[in-house]
Amino acid sequence: MDAEFPQDVGAQLTEVLRSMARTWEGTTARLLRQAKGAPPDAGLGLVVQEMALAVGAGVSGSGVIQFASGTTGTPEINGRFVPQTLHGEGLRDSDGALYLTRDPRGPSLEEHAPDAFAKLVEFGALGRIRLREEMEIKFILLDGQLTILDAVRIQRSNRAAVRIAVDLASTGVITKEDAILRVQPAALSELLHRQVDRSAKRDVFVRGIAASPGAASGRLVFTANEAQASAARSEACVLVRRETTPEDIRGMHAAVAVVTLRGGITSHAAVIGRGIGLPCIVGASDLDLDERKRTIIGPDGRTLKAGDMVTVDGSTGQVLVGEPAMLEAALDEAFQTLLSWADDVRDIGIRANADTPADAQTARNFAAEGIGLVRTEHMFFHGERVDLMREMIFAETPIALAAVLERLLPLQRADFSEIFQIMQDQPVCIRLFDAPLHEFLPAGKQGMRDLAEVLNVPLAQMTARVDDLSEYNPMLGMRGVRLGITVPEIYDMQARAIFEATVASSAKGIVLVPEIMIPLVSAKREVELVQSRLDAVAAAVRAESGVDFEYRLGVMVETPRAALRAEDIAEHAAFLSFGTNDLTQMTYGLSRDDAGKFMSDYVKLRVYPEDPFHTLDLDGVGELLQLGADRGRKGRPDVTLSICGEHGGDTAAIAFCRTHGFDYVSCSPFRVPVARLSAAQLALKDKLGT
Amino acid sequence: MDAEFPQDVGAQLTEVLRSMARTWEGTTARLLRQAKGAPPDAGLGLVVQEMALAVGAGVSGSGVIQFASGTTGTPEINGRFVPQTLHGEGLRDSDGALYLTRDPRGPSLEEHAPDAFAKLVEFGALGRIRLREEMEIKFILLDGQLTILDAVRIQRSNRAAVRIAVDLASTGVITKEDAILRVQPAALSELLHRQVDRSAKRDVFVRGIAASPGAASGRLVFTANEAQASAARSEACVLVRRETTPEDIRGMHAAVAVVTLRGGITSHAAVIGRGIGLPCIVGASDLDLDERKRTIIGPDGRTLKAGDMVTVDGSTGQVLVGEPAMLEAALDEAFQTLLSWADDVRDIGIRANADTPADAQTARNFAAEGIGLVRTEHMFFHGERVDLMREMIFAETPIALAAVLERLLPLQRADFSEIFQIMQDQPVCIRLFDAPLHEFLPAGKQGMRDLAEVLNVPLAQMTARVDDLSEYNPMLGMRGVRLGITVPEIYDMQARAIFEATVASSAKGIVLVPEIMIPLVSAKREVELVQSRLDAVAAAVRAESGVDFEYRLGVMVETPRAALRAEDIAEHAAFLSFGTNDLTQMTYGLSRDDAGKFMSDYVKLRVYPEDPFHTLDLDGVGELLQLGADRGRKGRPDVTLSICGEHGGDTAAIAFCRTHGFDYVSCSPFRVPVARLSAAQLALKDKLGT
Repeated sequence: MDAEFPQDVGAQLTEVLRSMARTWEGTTARLLRQAKGAPPDAGLGLVVQEMALAVGAGVSGSGVIQFASGTTGTPEINGRFVPQTLHGEGLRDSDGALYLTRDPRGPSLEEHAPDAFAKLVEFGALGRIRLREEMEIKFILLDGQLTILDAVRIQRSNRAAVRIAVDLASTGVITKEDAILRVQPAALSELLHRQVDRSAKRDVFVRGIAASPGAASGRLVFTANEAQASAARSEACVLVRRETTPEDIRGMHAAVAVVTLRGGITSHAAVIGRGIGLPCIVGASDLDLDERKRTIIGPDGRTLKAGDMVTVDGSTGQVLVGEPAMLEAALDEAFQTLLSWADDVRDIGIRANADTPADAQTARNFAAEGIGLVRTEHMFFHGERVDLMREMIFAETPIALAAVLERLLPLQRADFSEIFQIMQDQPVCIRLFDAPLHEFLPAGKQGMRDLAEVLNVPLAQMTARVDDLSEYNPMLGMRGVRLGITVPEIYDMQARAIFEATVASSAKGIVLVPEIMIPLVSAKREVELVQSRLDAVAAAVRAESGVDFEYRLGVMVETPRAALRAEDIAEHAAFLSFGTNDLTQMTYGLSRDDAGKFMSDYVKLRVYPEDPFHTLDLDGVGELLQLGADRGRKGRPDVTLSICGEHGGDTAAIAFCRTHGFDYVSCSPFRVPVARLSAAQLALKDKLGT
Repeated sequence: MDAEFPQDVGAQLTEVLRSMARTWEGTTARLLRQAKGAPPDAGLGLVVQEMALAVGAGVSGSGVIQFASGTTGTPEINGRFVPQTLHGEGLRDSDGALYLTRDPRGPSLEEHAPDAFAKLVEFGALGRIRLREEMEIKFILLDGQLTILDAVRIQRSNRAAVRIAVDLASTGVITKEDAILRVQPAALSELLHRQVDRSAKRDVFVRGIAASPGAASGRLVFTANEAQASAARSEACVLVRRETTPEDIRGMHAAVAVVTLRGGITSHAAVIGRGIGLPCIVGASDLDLDERKRTIIGPDGRTLKAGDMVTVDGSTGQVLVGEPAMLEAALDEAFQTLLSWADDVRDIGIRANADTPADAQTARNFAAEGIGLVRTEHMFFHGERVDLMREMIFAETPIALAAVLERLLPLQRADFSEIFQIMQDQPVCIRLFDAPLHEFLPAGKQGMRDLAEVLNVPLAQMTARVDDLSEYNPMLGMRGVRLGITVPEIYDMQARAIFEATVASSAKGIVLVPEIMIPLVSAKREVELVQSRLDAVAAAVRAESGVDFEYRLGVMVETPRAALRAEDIAEHAAFLSFGTNDLTQMTYGLSRDDAGKFMSDYVKLRVYPEDPFHTLDLDGVGELLQLGADRGRKGRPDVTLSICGEHGGDTAAIAFCRTHGFDYVSCSPFRVPVARLSAAQLALKDKLGT
């Protein structure tokens, strides 16, 4: 995407060029017009011609020159000059272009027409100041006389746009505010990840849903085991699965990118992908996967087999054949500088969603002001933990359940301690277990048989339990606070882990008030019930440790009913964080994971102006947010308000939250820079009244 | 449930008995007090004793008498009289009770104390008028002297309550309004179905969710085929399935009742059960079903096998062992009379949800004022039709799709014609196809293989298509208008069937404006798109037939977003019908079919005061209804407003709809009488200011 540019630059340009022309020594406009047979009125071109300027004799030709790299934005002269001869009615190319600057490989303009070259450089510097931009200058030399034909702002990559804006501001050509406003927030996202070079040729094999940005190349594998084997050989691999389950986690960690045929932008693969910064494409339903033959067939009939090299572009949702050229991530100084300026003007908090200590570290690196959402269930998808979860699910007696929870406790406590250590004095908001239990079960018959063996449970009993847990609509089923109330021991364990980690951190001098958030609330009484148990656990931990601490209890508002009843609910909730993903699903009656089948038709037919999972629906979901915020404040004037979820980093969502007086937004760690810039731009635009 | 009774009857009773006592000829109170050794102050008893009345000599004893049957409500004298002898300080029973009225089987009070008996009858008649109730009179005879000890309203079944109320009003003892107010609406529901006799002993085998009321006894079967075989032998059978699919429809028709282990009150079995008036229990998850052994094991470890006799009480959700005594349905004259009086005072419309001509006939029988919801997808679950649906799903080309739709068209047209014929001049609101397509697929591998053979499709291709259609959250997926927009040919066919049936009906003199309703709308543009296609079909049918007709297009408001955007949506919608089932699911983020796992815990812990699928949640869902209604009227002042779905017959929901100026409620046919009575009571209570 190209960087933003002030809209009135055309008028500015004309005016500045006119004034430049007036100040210069002479004009060869008449001569030039005659030589090129130009019509007397040729718009801007004509105006520019009036600036033609005699600098010497001997060299003729046309060229372009610019003073910063369009790819990186670093100062450098490049362009080209083609010598020409005056012939009859016009100019005719002579052989070969000249280098602009001195170059060992051949002749240069700098050598052959040093005066003209010097004037060009001077003109470039002047233009940069007057036009407040890096310009590409088109010029001709006519028997040594320099004529400026035109000047346009240089084409630039997103990364160059950042560097140029920062350089212009650092040299006082523009203000810091201007620099902030000149970079499109979305452009930053590209800088955070490896990307396919824009100029590389793309051989698209299939398109899916861009679920986790960045690009990576590797050899095709079709199972988590193959991926791990490939990683063991230090061979980059791309894991293609129909869909992923917790059992694929190790394989995902071993792969450089993941593609799934099913699922939407919040399917398992997508969530994990974004969490660990792995390029990911989901819902590539045009792929035909043959697991036995270990092949995939694309929509055009081409077949790729295991071991073939592909590139996953998680930013565009394209799977490419082969290995196109890449651009590395660019978290350079210019990037950091721009964001620090943005933070100076920003007036809404930005936190990150972080599910693991690694995520927390990323959040910290991107200067998030705390963690707005720790999805604790994601902590259990890994290795040994998924086994413990399964043991918990199959616990037959309260004693067995307690025993498993006892083993989960230190793992959770360690997670939280580590996150608190990383975040130091910054707030951390931990969401209690949300996922339905069956997400932790193995997929397929073999997986069930293996698990039955490991847990020493009869297969029939296991099958029955799995059957019990299966749901028609898991999104709307036994999860979140419903599980928390039905099996309260899980929340008790989590609360204990949080409180014990708080006590441990305070011993290290970290003073924090952990925030605990209850998911999927639809009635006030749910909050009351959880609160009374949490208070009891807190009291126990205080008594055992002799350390006093506080905690803040809040509610994730993600059902329409919680928004409607926010006044009631806020009686028990110190904060309300709107989970816009689920709220969007329920407001529309639309499952993210299933919407892929018709969303593109819907956007094409303008049924929805945008995919509401990408761009917050202000008309419907937004009204519930507003209403929930207003009512929440009515119930508790000092309630902390925020949104978390995929929309958190979205400009429209941030604008909405600023307007309605929210305290912060929380988004995935990699969107934090984008959100910081967006928020700053919104504050500036408010100030400027634009 | 017992019939309602005015609360101030105690005070009334005292007052009336006092005044009766004053008017009678003498009093034996002193004598009696002495005889029974009663304390000087014995409350009401004392007051009553003052009425003791000398009627003759010779007979002593105590008895009760009433003048209407507590079971049926028909006028008849029954009770008992136990002769006693005065002995020392009190009365002592002598041998044997007397009949009250002359009886060939033995001596009666009427013979032995004709004066006392005549006085009792006279007193009964007087009491009925003065107390405005059928009373049970407790009395003693003391040497021929009649003493009235007490009078209480007779215990009565729901059916007797109706008969007694109607008789009291018909004889001018109470007003018709009083009669209407005296019968609890819920009590009517019992009259509509066969019931287990209240006095029968219940041997409960398992409890599930009461999904379709009424009771039936039959022998256990475990497959649809066995059910059909059983029906062929004219042997009543109860079909027990893990869950039902469209393939079980014939078996369900063949059974007298259905039990499923899975599913909630709107699962397939429940919906079909209510539709065809079949007692049904779902979600009986405590049952252990062994399909191979053909047994079920109850939670107490007892085993029942195929062929064992059970009774399904779909009103209470109990599966009973054996065959307890039953009460037949009672749609008698009193029932009809009461409802016709109710209709005179009712001020909101009552329509029925009816999916088939048979349902429509039931609706008509129960005097529904039109059909508020024809769920067209339910028309396709039967026999040949499900095969056609499957063919449609596997249609590979537009031409193949058109060919299948061409064959579905006459079936749909015939359905609609028949419904129009039954309903005559009454409005019929037809909802376009709503269900996800995969609901029509066979369950299990063998079913798939069979289908592949029938359709002559390679199994792999079929499996792939089935895989395509499977969804994570079908409730929130590709259904309703989303399917209508993505595969518009289906709605085109349905619209054509409706319009052609309209034309055919008009030839028979039935003038109707069919109402067409779009399901699962979340944005105005969905309505626009469907409307433009429907208009085109209507124009085509008008041109082909030369008959002019109109239709009304409306929207089913069942997503929170549709309620929020009702003002926009009403621009294109002549009516808005709130689908409270789905709206409740989405507002709570709660799937009906999955809520069973925790709903009873939730209600027990008072997290929800009631199951919101049974009792409309006025605080949350109700606010969306109100807001949607207000906004709908803002967009179109004359928009017709209604609710349809399970809540339609609920008193709270009807009260809500009356308050907010809705035009009608629509409920399942068997709830229509209940709704008519509820609505009448609400109107009366408003009038009386109570």
